[in-house]
Amino acid sequence: MSKGDDTRRRIVSEAAKLFNRQGFAGAAMSDLMQATGLEKGGIYRHFSSKQELAAEAFDYAWQVAWDARMDELKSIPNSVDRLKRFVGNFVDKRPAVPGGCPLLNTAIDADDGDPILRERALKALRGWRRTLNEIVTKGIERKEIRPTVDPRKLTALVISSLEGALMMSRLEKNNEALLAIQSHLESYLEEQVRFSG
Amino acid sequence: MSKGDDTRRRIVSEAAKLFNRQGFAGAAMSDLMQATGLEKGGIYRHFSSKQELAAEAFDYAWQVAWDARMDELKSIPNSVDRLKRFVGNFVDKRPAVPGGCPLLNTAIDADDGDPILRERALKALRGWRRTLNEIVTKGIERKEIRPTVDPRKLTALVISSLEGALMMSRLEKNNEALLAIQSHLESYLEEQVRFSG
Repeated sequence: MSKGDDTRRRIVSEAAKLFNRQGFAGAAMSDLMQATGLEKGGIYRHFSSKQELAAEAFDYAWQVAWDARMDELKSIPNSVDRLKRFVGNFVDKRPAVPGGCPLLNTAIDADDGDPILRERALKALRGWRRTLNEIVTKGIERKEIRPTVDPRKLTALVISSLEGALMMSRLEKNNEALLAIQSHLESYLEEQVRFSG
Repeated sequence: MSKGDDTRRRIVSEAAKLFNRQGFAGAAMSDLMQATGLEKGGIYRHFSSKQELAAEAFDYAWQVAWDARMDELKSIPNSVDRLKRFVGNFVDKRPAVPGGCPLLNTAIDADDGDPILRERALKALRGWRRTLNEIVTKGIERKEIRPTVDPRKLTALVISSLEGALMMSRLEKNNEALLAIQSHLESYLEEQVRFSG
């Protein structure tokens, strides 16, 4: 890795921390200069615009969050247990990029705002939906999940309730809402989703 | 109402539209000047800071959203039906202040940001929790809701899943996630919450 690549990477990871906490409009170039120790020109040598940097910073923050949520998932054979682990990871693991879920933050920031950031957030949401859909669909095929379960509805339930609970927990500064949702989803997965032949 | 009060009110309602779509940092004073047709001095005659204006704009936007969600609730005697109506109102009624839910927007915007706005969002969340808690508690007393239901957990489920689904629906530009959550909550309320003793 060249020194230029290294600098670029460092800018992206510092920008991710700033944008994820302060939002696109709220993260000032001066904050980024301070965090990286670079001049404006040193930053813009690597990125054509604040928008381009924010988009890369989002992808980086999302990847970090995603890796935490997917932790050890592949080692779990049963699809219902896999979904429970996903929920547990979301609740227990606070990713290394501070400021909450990058998808939630960017979706709210960009839904009436920057179209490029909006597109990145939508792509992340689609990838999340796809991964959970695949777990559910495979679970139905393998008779681990009831054939009456609608994969897209279950996926929407998991994503929306976790994201909403994260908003509540961050605002209330405790884990109550996240734990309430984990308990609801676990009961639901055991009682209404798991195929018990 | 004096002319000054009228102007103040007009600034708040225009500011609510701007802040709810663009966020605190993203809503520029120049946008507000354009929306109100006032000079900067004409706006700051009524408010001591952007922060004070944003806080009042949040309260206004939240009141408008709240009124839409509470529509006709009091005319419904049964507490489970009342909860279902609340969910239906959230899904069906798009409030007059555009940009999505003011609480969700401000919570995400201010969780690492402005402490005054953060406090307003927290107050709104507490009020929302309190209203739903009261419906559930009264429902248990009246034997409309099972005594095993935990009011705070049910409240967290309703709020988090609706807010998360709104984020998804606004990003996906369709109602799929909101309708999936409405369907889940309605089944849950009928099958696990309603007392059929």
